[in-house]
Amino acid sequence: MEEKEISRAVISRLPIYYRYLGQLVDEGVERVSSKELSNIMRSSASQIRQDLNCFGGFGQQGYGYNVKFLYEEIGKILGLDKKHNLVLIGAGNLGQALANYVNFERRGFIIKGIFDKNTVLHGKTIRDITISPMEDLNSFVLNNNIDIAVLTIPKESAVVVTQDLVKCGIKAIWNFAHVDLDVPEGIVVENVHLSESLMKLSYDLNRKELEN
Amino acid sequence: MEEKEISRAVISRLPIYYRYLGQLVDEGVERVSSKELSNIMRSSASQIRQDLNCFGGFGQQGYGYNVKFLYEEIGKILGLDKKHNLVLIGAGNLGQALANYVNFERRGFIIKGIFDKNTVLHGKTIRDITISPMEDLNSFVLNNNIDIAVLTIPKESAVVVTQDLVKCGIKAIWNFAHVDLDVPEGIVVENVHLSESLMKLSYDLNRKELEN
Repeated sequence: MEEKEISRAVISRLPIYYRYLGQLVDEGVERVSSKELSNIMRSSASQIRQDLNCFGGFGQQGYGYNVKFLYEEIGKILGLDKKHNLVLIGAGNLGQALANYVNFERRGFIIKGIFDKNTVLHGKTIRDITISPMEDLNSFVLNNNIDIAVLTIPKESAVVVTQDLVKCGIKAIWNFAHVDLDVPEGIVVENVHLSESLMKLSYDLNRKELEN
Repeated sequence: MEEKEISRAVISRLPIYYRYLGQLVDEGVERVSSKELSNIMRSSASQIRQDLNCFGGFGQQGYGYNVKFLYEEIGKILGLDKKHNLVLIGAGNLGQALANYVNFERRGFIIKGIFDKNTVLHGKTIRDITISPMEDLNSFVLNNNIDIAVLTIPKESAVVVTQDLVKCGIKAIWNFAHVDLDVPEGIVVENVHLSESLMKLSYDLNRKELEN
């Protein structure tokens, strides 16, 4: 795969290609044209060709794309051919929802440990993973080859815990806390800010109501 | 407020302005320059000025922005000065996490009903809201002035339920199911695709690992 700077917009679309191609693989479809893909994905065929060209292009004139090959190649670009160990910090409802979501494991994200400050939860398990006290987090991260931390805790705790995780060599943080985390260059942070998503919905709804 | 087409990028940043300005309001800060805002938000002062100019501009040369005024105005642009009734469909872990998140109510999003197909949950309550059978959903939406449906159900069910919701006049769908919903023009859909977010994290992590 060639090394070049890919725009965030293209990267954001890769998981969508991956999802649709996965469906086609499941349906036994062997090849697909950019036109057909564009119908399924409701984006333009030229955008699809352009996007996939960023990665060297996988299509052949007059043949289209080999579905399984393209699916696997995009999976590799997304790093889904590798395994990554996770810790989940915060075993409240949201944490439990994520822990129970088996698809993550299928994509190579393995939850190795779950941590919570709530003593009532300690020793309980979610899908055979024991919930441990926060005091055990740092040594666990250091000793279990943990790449990713998932933060489903309040923002004040998230800021403090992040500093510890950074010291323990965490490589990436999937952050559900409503705060922008300060991390050194080189550490990946992906935010899921639910209230911001709801506000975007609210904005669009408000616009529609003003139009009518 | 003037009527013009605002780019999605600007709209995406409005909730972030709103969050930071809310913090400044809480801290008792009365005015802020675009330079100061840019330090807090880690974006450029010129972008901030440009963004806020899309909405007519709220700043005054040499004074900066009145924090409370700007906070309230952005809230209005986002439609947060209005109340919207919601139904939550799917009372699993994710649904429960959302139902328990009190901040949504503070922003004017009121959960009026919770629905699930699981009979074990029927009659149980989350924050005093009773979980009802799916059979009651349509009449509830029709009779309770419901604007927004939150879908925390599997994708197959989400597709079917969406068609019913559309018939019952739903205005907006906050979709957590891993599927792009087909809705008629004029109905707002805001997606939260968690696995796509995790794949973006995976992509970035993979890039960093390849660089080192």
